[in-house]
Amino acid sequence: MKNGFLSAGKTFILVVALFVSMKAPAQGSDLANGNAATDIVLPAAATAIFEEISPNASDPSLVLRATVLITGGWYEAAAPFHPTAVGVYSRLGRQPDQNSADNSPINTAILYASRGVLTYLFPTRSETWDDMLRNVGLDPELRTEDTTTPAGIGNAAARAVVEGRQNDGINADGTAGGRSFNPMPFADYTGYQPVNTAHQLVDPSRWQPDIQRKGAGIYRVQNFVTPQYRLVEPFSFEDAQAFSFPPPVASDVTKIDLYTTQAQEVLDASAALDDQMKLMAEFFDNKISSLGFSTVFSAKAANLSVFDYVASDFFSNVAAFDAGIVVWQEKHKYDAVRPFSAIRHVFAGETVTAFGGPGRGIVVDLPAEEWASYLEEADHPEYPSATACVCAAHAEFKRLFFQSDDINWSVPVAAGSSRIEPGLVPAKDMKLNFPTWTAFEQDCGQSRVWAGVHFQAAVDESLKICPVFGKQAYTFMEGLLAGTTPVRPPSTGR
Amino acid sequence: MKNGFLSAGKTFILVVALFVSMKAPAQGSDLANGNAATDIVLPAAATAIFEEISPNASDPSLVLRATVLITGGWYEAAAPFHPTAVGVYSRLGRQPDQNSADNSPINTAILYASRGVLTYLFPTRSETWDDMLRNVGLDPELRTEDTTTPAGIGNAAARAVVEGRQNDGINADGTAGGRSFNPMPFADYTGYQPVNTAHQLVDPSRWQPDIQRKGAGIYRVQNFVTPQYRLVEPFSFEDAQAFSFPPPVASDVTKIDLYTTQAQEVLDASAALDDQMKLMAEFFDNKISSLGFSTVFSAKAANLSVFDYVASDFFSNVAAFDAGIVVWQEKHKYDAVRPFSAIRHVFAGETVTAFGGPGRGIVVDLPAEEWASYLEEADHPEYPSATACVCAAHAEFKRLFFQSDDINWSVPVAAGSSRIEPGLVPAKDMKLNFPTWTAFEQDCGQSRVWAGVHFQAAVDESLKICPVFGKQAYTFMEGLLAGTTPVRPPSTGR
Repeated sequence: MKNGFLSAGKTFILVVALFVSMKAPAQGSDLANGNAATDIVLPAAATAIFEEISPNASDPSLVLRATVLITGGWYEAAAPFHPTAVGVYSRLGRQPDQNSADNSPINTAILYASRGVLTYLFPTRSETWDDMLRNVGLDPELRTEDTTTPAGIGNAAARAVVEGRQNDGINADGTAGGRSFNPMPFADYTGYQPVNTAHQLVDPSRWQPDIQRKGAGIYRVQNFVTPQYRLVEPFSFEDAQAFSFPPPVASDVTKIDLYTTQAQEVLDASAALDDQMKLMAEFFDNKISSLGFSTVFSAKAANLSVFDYVASDFFSNVAAFDAGIVVWQEKHKYDAVRPFSAIRHVFAGETVTAFGGPGRGIVVDLPAEEWASYLEEADHPEYPSATACVCAAHAEFKRLFFQSDDINWSVPVAAGSSRIEPGLVPAKDMKLNFPTWTAFEQDCGQSRVWAGVHFQAAVDESLKICPVFGKQAYTFMEGLLAGTTPVRPPSTGR
Repeated sequence: MKNGFLSAGKTFILVVALFVSMKAPAQGSDLANGNAATDIVLPAAATAIFEEISPNASDPSLVLRATVLITGGWYEAAAPFHPTAVGVYSRLGRQPDQNSADNSPINTAILYASRGVLTYLFPTRSETWDDMLRNVGLDPELRTEDTTTPAGIGNAAARAVVEGRQNDGINADGTAGGRSFNPMPFADYTGYQPVNTAHQLVDPSRWQPDIQRKGAGIYRVQNFVTPQYRLVEPFSFEDAQAFSFPPPVASDVTKIDLYTTQAQEVLDASAALDDQMKLMAEFFDNKISSLGFSTVFSAKAANLSVFDYVASDFFSNVAAFDAGIVVWQEKHKYDAVRPFSAIRHVFAGETVTAFGGPGRGIVVDLPAEEWASYLEEADHPEYPSATACVCAAHAEFKRLFFQSDDINWSVPVAAGSSRIEPGLVPAKDMKLNFPTWTAFEQDCGQSRVWAGVHFQAAVDESLKICPVFGKQAYTFMEGLLAGTTPVRPPSTGR
């Protein structure tokens, strides 16, 4: 009964539960009739992402690189089972016509591909990935790349994707800049430095790292996560610099009226926070619960075949991942201030009306210095909103894929299941309702203002500009499904 | 068979295992014959400390405040069962002579006291603490403070300790400075700012926060943990300023010869690292495995009564906690550079011979910029060494308490159980042997140079100066056991 509810804290338990409870009955080990990607791989992969990458799946650059590689492995392995589709990084032949009622071959290929990609992403869990095969009667020792067999297709697909992306510019192996010892995976190699420190707002227009609490009493200072994401090779377009966002004029402190109005808007949103807004903020902060689950839900609702599901998931991830590259380019360019800094700067010494923190509700005499956003800010400059942009890219891709704006998705949320205010919020069981993809992207974007982590302009510009990345991904998919796109050489960006 | 071995990663599992496997057989639920403090409370409390405060129990200010309060609750509850002892913060009467073979009354008082202190320290785990009582047949609903009953003594003891220490200057409730909203527990309220950033070593004599990796690809910048610890009320002396350390002259970059020699010493130690040194470094980094276990081991070896065990543990914690206050005062005063910064500064552009990182062994062509300490540095300036100082204070207290330097403790370490080089180090099963408390403190101190996180002077001065804190704690104990120390009013430092 509670399986489908957002549970407090242990998000990854929720993920497993939600996947299992989705519309179609779970068909975990039924390779002939089930969907191995959603039924077997996703719950295990999501657990690894939550535990090793991002506890709330709220770091888009790291989370999306993992998900685009995992789903990329699926696509690469599934392509031979389609009449015309080709992989991005491989040509694994064409499987003869098979009884399409039997999913065993495509599922087997997907499982071996998943094992390979997941072992690359999470090498310390290699036993888990081998067990994933063993549990459904497949032999993890089978290392063949014979593309006349499903296992061989899967193994070859994994190798193609890993070799294709291992030097994609994100510095996954930590050796960027010629580093030979003590590798620093995913560390910046571009030399980014914030102009402000956590202790001093030297330039109130620019990004200031915040001091965030970890556990009972450890505080750490934020560090711009993967500034080099802007240099990563995109899937669906050549050059990220072909895209840009207008400057965030109201974040320029020399335009103090605009700057003040923009800060006040965030306080006004904070003062209007209700349970619905709080849960929306938490839901969209988690890229797996929002982007990932919407893909699974819409695929099951449309009764997609395994191949079509894989395409809908991989190319959605392409849309989001490529959107993120441009967002990072613009974040790096503008290096814009977050609301917490601007509010303290503008309203120092004054009291404001706003959310007073967990369990405190809305208060009218909050010292501005003590205001905090409902969610902690992510580790990067404010403008534009990555969350709003990837939601807009994702929604546009889905509209094109399904040729419809409808989704009719209703996400149940149990009373007291908030991550921020556990036991208190929401006051009673409720639902987050998304009748259309348009509603989904609008709520997603606006939730960043409700969360107190973005100004309105960062959301508005992302919602306006980012559908283009859904279109790019859709066009990219069309070429691959038709088999007309040439095979891509491995990235060499590091 | 492997119960007593240091296990990789999940340190808290080890803790539970080590406690259970210590010399005397576990007597978990036998209140009449067992020791509730070691058998029941310690494993549960250690788990909470690892999970909520410090994953490797390597943050002394936060860890020691928790342990001194927990053991302080035991002492406050145990005092009435001694012929003359009085509590620090309470006068809970004197229990009539009892059959000393029956530990039930003192164990019961200790358990109720533990529940109270642990609920204050870890309120979200209140069910765990109530279950701790329930599991041995005690009623957690019993809230009496009737000091003619063991439960009442325990409840009153907990309240006395919590009220005594809640405003001790560490900012446990996060309201220091008059903060009313979004409290920041244990956050600095003294306005400390580092002169260097993680990106720029502006002054090579001074502390530089390092950038440390969390999970797959998140990097965070260090923040001096609890600079206000220097202002916390000590137990065993009035004024921390009565103690001081000589300046760390070799950390002054204007004395470049000394500065270079000091940096080279750390590289030499790194180049000589063997399995024994690596495991010593890991062992002493963890204040629960080193300080805590040595107390339990020595108490069981000496077959101490429950009361004497409690005294040996609480006053050891007093020695370490008070030593830490002075160490923080000096760390704050000198704000001294860590080896990683100095080595990069002095040897920039050169290669050095040193440990090359996990799995790489000793290498002769290591670019100085790529050198990393075997352990990550703790979140505070370098000089003096907190670990060496608390070990020296602890060892001196034990020598006085047992009137002997002998300990004859041998800690088994399983092959491959290193936290830093799991599966590789140590190459085979080995033991860490401590024949005497002097050997214990010497290895403890030196392990900080082996770990690459301290210069030799920080260790040498700590070993020279810090036995005084063991003496202070012993004198403090003598007054309380004799019943001559007046009751102390609650701290008012915040």
